[in-house]
Amino acid sequence: MNIYDVSEKAGVSIATVSRVLNGNPNVSEQTKNKVLAVMEELGYTPNIFARGLGLNTMKTIGIMCTDSSDIYLANAVYYTEHELRSHDYDSILCCTGYDLENKKKSLELLLSKRVDAIIMVGSKFLEPKLEDNAYIIAASAQLPIMLVNGFLEGENIFCTLCDDFHAIYGITDKLIQSGRQSLLYLYTSNSYSGARKREGYLAALSHNSMPVRDQYMQMCKKDIKDARDTITRLYRDGMQIDSVITSDDSLAVGALKFALHNHISVPEDICIAGYNNSILATCAEPELTSIDTKVKALCVNTVNTLMRIFDGYNVPSRTMISADIIYRKTTNI
Amino acid sequence: MNIYDVSEKAGVSIATVSRVLNGNPNVSEQTKNKVLAVMEELGYTPNIFARGLGLNTMKTIGIMCTDSSDIYLANAVYYTEHELRSHDYDSILCCTGYDLENKKKSLELLLSKRVDAIIMVGSKFLEPKLEDNAYIIAASAQLPIMLVNGFLEGENIFCTLCDDFHAIYGITDKLIQSGRQSLLYLYTSNSYSGARKREGYLAALSHNSMPVRDQYMQMCKKDIKDARDTITRLYRDGMQIDSVITSDDSLAVGALKFALHNHISVPEDICIAGYNNSILATCAEPELTSIDTKVKALCVNTVNTLMRIFDGYNVPSRTMISADIIYRKTTNI
Repeated sequence: MNIYDVSEKAGVSIATVSRVLNGNPNVSEQTKNKVLAVMEELGYTPNIFARGLGLNTMKTIGIMCTDSSDIYLANAVYYTEHELRSHDYDSILCCTGYDLENKKKSLELLLSKRVDAIIMVGSKFLEPKLEDNAYIIAASAQLPIMLVNGFLEGENIFCTLCDDFHAIYGITDKLIQSGRQSLLYLYTSNSYSGARKREGYLAALSHNSMPVRDQYMQMCKKDIKDARDTITRLYRDGMQIDSVITSDDSLAVGALKFALHNHISVPEDICIAGYNNSILATCAEPELTSIDTKVKALCVNTVNTLMRIFDGYNVPSRTMISADIIYRKTTNI
Repeated sequence: MNIYDVSEKAGVSIATVSRVLNGNPNVSEQTKNKVLAVMEELGYTPNIFARGLGLNTMKTIGIMCTDSSDIYLANAVYYTEHELRSHDYDSILCCTGYDLENKKKSLELLLSKRVDAIIMVGSKFLEPKLEDNAYIIAASAQLPIMLVNGFLEGENIFCTLCDDFHAIYGITDKLIQSGRQSLLYLYTSNSYSGARKREGYLAALSHNSMPVRDQYMQMCKKDIKDARDTITRLYRDGMQIDSVITSDDSLAVGALKFALHNHISVPEDICIAGYNNSILATCAEPELTSIDTKVKALCVNTVNTLMRIFDGYNVPSRTMISADIIYRKTTNI
């Protein structure tokens, strides 16, 4: 028994049921009475949306992420917690690791705590196979699920995404426009965000009538040394590389170390672009050109969207925020 | 009315009261009856220690830190949360910032949530003036306060510390033994941990009969650029520097950038040592010699100590864990 059953039986939208539950005045007396009658008929006890009725809420949001010691995720957790607190909400943090069973267990635990909503942080929280995310869709029948830079379709699932496609498209296109021809794309993940980035790289090649060469798209671990080793291997195999575009600053640092140790000038002989504009970008020498993926804006939007859901408004299921290229010393574009 | 009143009135230790509350068999029947009689007389409702009686616990621990996006603190929060979860405890995270009023407000909020204990992460969570930490001592009458690398005295306050004194003493002594004479110490904080580090630097000078020169101890922001600017200024003023010892890797990265931009050879002309052995140490080129401050061990010990408190054991109020020097390319010792 949940808000969807009430919505269906009453023939009104979920947002309308939510408005009734929140005492929002933008509902006609007639509709309100119908919804309340259906609720009584079905024996529905309002749970998560019940703030307006003063029932049953802990004002607590579950935050889930794979690994809060990852620089990007640590920042995202920080901004999310902060923004929730400014709205007088507490957060319970669960770091699940990458194992699906642990993710499921943590979600059940949060549901058992009767949190008001769950915020899942990071593209990699979702599994690559759609059916492996069925437990999330099932949970979304009970409470709003908010994804920070992840994408999953579902009626009560709301995503705030960085426009990773145009970010990678933009930097790749700039490099090609400046005369670069052998652009290595180094990435770590096939998540939704990972796929969008790769599509951006491919679209920029295609837009500039450049051939797609599979060996110019290389996956590696999110690790400075693994990135460096990967490029070193390609270079020793004789591959021409005049640019390295990456999906994370750590990979760009690896590329920079490769260049320095092989006496290749940066940016003259090889341009290097990071991603996420983390502290690694300014730690590197020369400092990395990188992509500001607006993690704070993503988190603030996620929390504000959630507050609007609680207040009974219709909100878009997907919000896209543009990234910025931060130009530094590893490119000359 | 709290466990201390019961302990005092019954004339037994707090640990004994706790054992009674937890149904620990290592209490005589007589003592147990006395404690229970006092509890009834005082109208004491067991709260935080009441797990054994199955009363009133949420199995939730409050974690407080100033800023979970700081690399060190992010790792500490991650390990703490993980270790708590392995003991079936949830955690509520509060990032307070550095403002005292916010710290107080967050603590009150956690108390109102009836958490079972509070873990404060990081030396900087405590205020430099002792009286500004009175609110923490007051809270410790209600529940155990656990400090991760912070130090505050109090009956129900338990500290797990990295041996920062010997860590800085060790690296400074090694540098002096290898012939270095002009050792700049760059630091960011006068926290308890910060003071211990500075004492380690001074003790190594003294042990080697070297003069203490105030201008060789410089405070700066925890920021690559500020560290670099600070050293550049000293260098332009004519100061001899053959080593830079720091209280954080970010400062060591700043020192490295200073050396590279002034064509000073590392480690031949200047040795540089970081602190915390973070990802910045391996991101830097050459990679930084740094101090592994055992953040995981600190967090695991903190949580295990707390579990022993809950189980009614006597635990030490202070545990010290040794750091390790990780030798890399910015020193030749």
